[in-house]
Amino acid sequence: MLRVILFGLGPIGAAIGRLTQDKPNMKIVGAIDVDPAKVGQDVGRVIGLDRDLGVAVSSDAAEVLAVPADVVLHCTGSYLEQVKDQLIQCLRAGKNVVSTCEELSYPRRKHPALSADLDQVARDNGVTLHGTGVNPGFVMDKLPLTLTSVCQQVDRVDVTRIVDAGKRRLPLQKKVGAGMSEVEFRQQVDAGVIKHHGLPESAAMIADYLGLPIVKIEETIEPVMATAVVTTEYLTVQPGQVAGVKQICEAMGDGKVLVRLELQMYVGAPDAADTVRVHGKPDLTLTIPGGTHGDLATAAAAVNAVPLVAEAREGLRTAADLPVRFAPGKLAEVLA
Amino acid sequence: MLRVILFGLGPIGAAIGRLTQDKPNMKIVGAIDVDPAKVGQDVGRVIGLDRDLGVAVSSDAAEVLAVPADVVLHCTGSYLEQVKDQLIQCLRAGKNVVSTCEELSYPRRKHPALSADLDQVARDNGVTLHGTGVNPGFVMDKLPLTLTSVCQQVDRVDVTRIVDAGKRRLPLQKKVGAGMSEVEFRQQVDAGVIKHHGLPESAAMIADYLGLPIVKIEETIEPVMATAVVTTEYLTVQPGQVAGVKQICEAMGDGKVLVRLELQMYVGAPDAADTVRVHGKPDLTLTIPGGTHGDLATAAAAVNAVPLVAEAREGLRTAADLPVRFAPGKLAEVLA
Repeated sequence: MLRVILFGLGPIGAAIGRLTQDKPNMKIVGAIDVDPAKVGQDVGRVIGLDRDLGVAVSSDAAEVLAVPADVVLHCTGSYLEQVKDQLIQCLRAGKNVVSTCEELSYPRRKHPALSADLDQVARDNGVTLHGTGVNPGFVMDKLPLTLTSVCQQVDRVDVTRIVDAGKRRLPLQKKVGAGMSEVEFRQQVDAGVIKHHGLPESAAMIADYLGLPIVKIEETIEPVMATAVVTTEYLTVQPGQVAGVKQICEAMGDGKVLVRLELQMYVGAPDAADTVRVHGKPDLTLTIPGGTHGDLATAAAAVNAVPLVAEAREGLRTAADLPVRFAPGKLAEVLA
Repeated sequence: MLRVILFGLGPIGAAIGRLTQDKPNMKIVGAIDVDPAKVGQDVGRVIGLDRDLGVAVSSDAAEVLAVPADVVLHCTGSYLEQVKDQLIQCLRAGKNVVSTCEELSYPRRKHPALSADLDQVARDNGVTLHGTGVNPGFVMDKLPLTLTSVCQQVDRVDVTRIVDAGKRRLPLQKKVGAGMSEVEFRQQVDAGVIKHHGLPESAAMIADYLGLPIVKIEETIEPVMATAVVTTEYLTVQPGQVAGVKQICEAMGDGKVLVRLELQMYVGAPDAADTVRVHGKPDLTLTIPGGTHGDLATAAAAVNAVPLVAEAREGLRTAADLPVRFAPGKLAEVLA
């Protein structure tokens, strides 16, 4: 039985919590959140189950982390500097950590010193620290890296992910700027509000593990303008308004692009898909028509990582360091 | 520097040898083959390079395996019973092994006792034993397993691989029966000549790692008949003759199919592709248009596994146990 602690009970943390309850070999033994509306409540109710689990949500992380447990599922923020103290607290309590913090997926380029510190704390405490999700964590890093295993030579990697934001939650539709004017959109970009986290981390992970000699990583965020009326379950976008966002990250070598990641998230996208192109020997293209569902997939990636992280070597481990697959709860008898 | 020994210098072994020479961190330090035409020759010439490597091919495995080396690249046969003594000899010499033996990719169901023995010998000698390739090893096992990492539930996995044998080597075109009569084809199937190895291994790997409760694995081999004239670089197939083979492997649960693998290899296939379908939550489809090139990819998979196996935990390790990716020779500085 894998004992898990939930650290952060927002929408993704709650989805992760519910999914652990589908696994016969996982049990929630603690839950941490600072929201006064959640503290003191039974975690089962807080994550949306129709039953109590006999574990009360606490805002006292130290107290919860004193409970014996195998893995902390951490979902509190995107910026590593903002969550590092939480992560260190988990590691010092001797707990393995799976986190959805986007910057943790591959922090070595943006935060080299902090990465080394986190790695050392994990090793000192004999545990593993791992950041994952669907993007970063899968579509734009793990999946293309896996594809390169059948290549004799790799010169460049391109990934395009097109998401129809109209089929997602309202917060996501708002987050991509649907319905805004272009001026408002650009203000929100400048304010750092409209921004998907993780593309530079994925680009760096690909480049470093493939040995592609990159010298800089650049990122741009542009609006996708609606050319016709788009109506979703929650809102209507008029022609000339913003339909969503197109974010491009390029990892450059000496004068040429070595990794190019393009994320389009807008309402009414007709051709949602994840597409990977490896330029090399041979050239390879891989497509997931419709694309990998963001919310479902991020919760799945985190929960499926639990048994792998519990078994992994100590230290900071990326998606490229670990095998990944669905965690069935228990393995078939032949493997027992 | 990773020192490798080549064990078996047929077409695939030679391709693997050539590819190691593209890696700045791999060096051939020994070569084993029983073919009198190769013994005593410089391995560089035998594998098709235009230069000597200063290593003579030897038929004396014990002598070659006494040389200090990190990994043996083993390519001598498809049947585990036939190559087990070679593998054990490598392991006892303290060498990690990457083998293209199809039955080694996931031997636990077909050869449970022998698997346990090989695992124990590897552990006793502190080394890793790994079977890989493109199929088995990637398209029908590692790739679908990787895709399931973003699934919340997995009910069934289907993989279809369609190969245009007309674009491959003559031996492969003959191996799939191109140009035979249907009677001759079925005789060759009954004689065990027309058969791609590895589908039951891939099906078992998927089922066991996903926890799908299979009770039996069945395999059928049928001809694909030509309906029009097909001309390849090497031969012509008339309508009514065999164009190639369609091999289907099904892993069954209690009355239903849980894993279905279909391999079509025939001349003139218009729609070559690898396609994975995961039925679950969510359903996911993944396509590699054109398909993964068999010869290039098998050599790549084996050579790319060398650094991973050199670092892996001791014992028998499958593609599902290891992360996979292109081996660049040396990692970028940030990872050093």
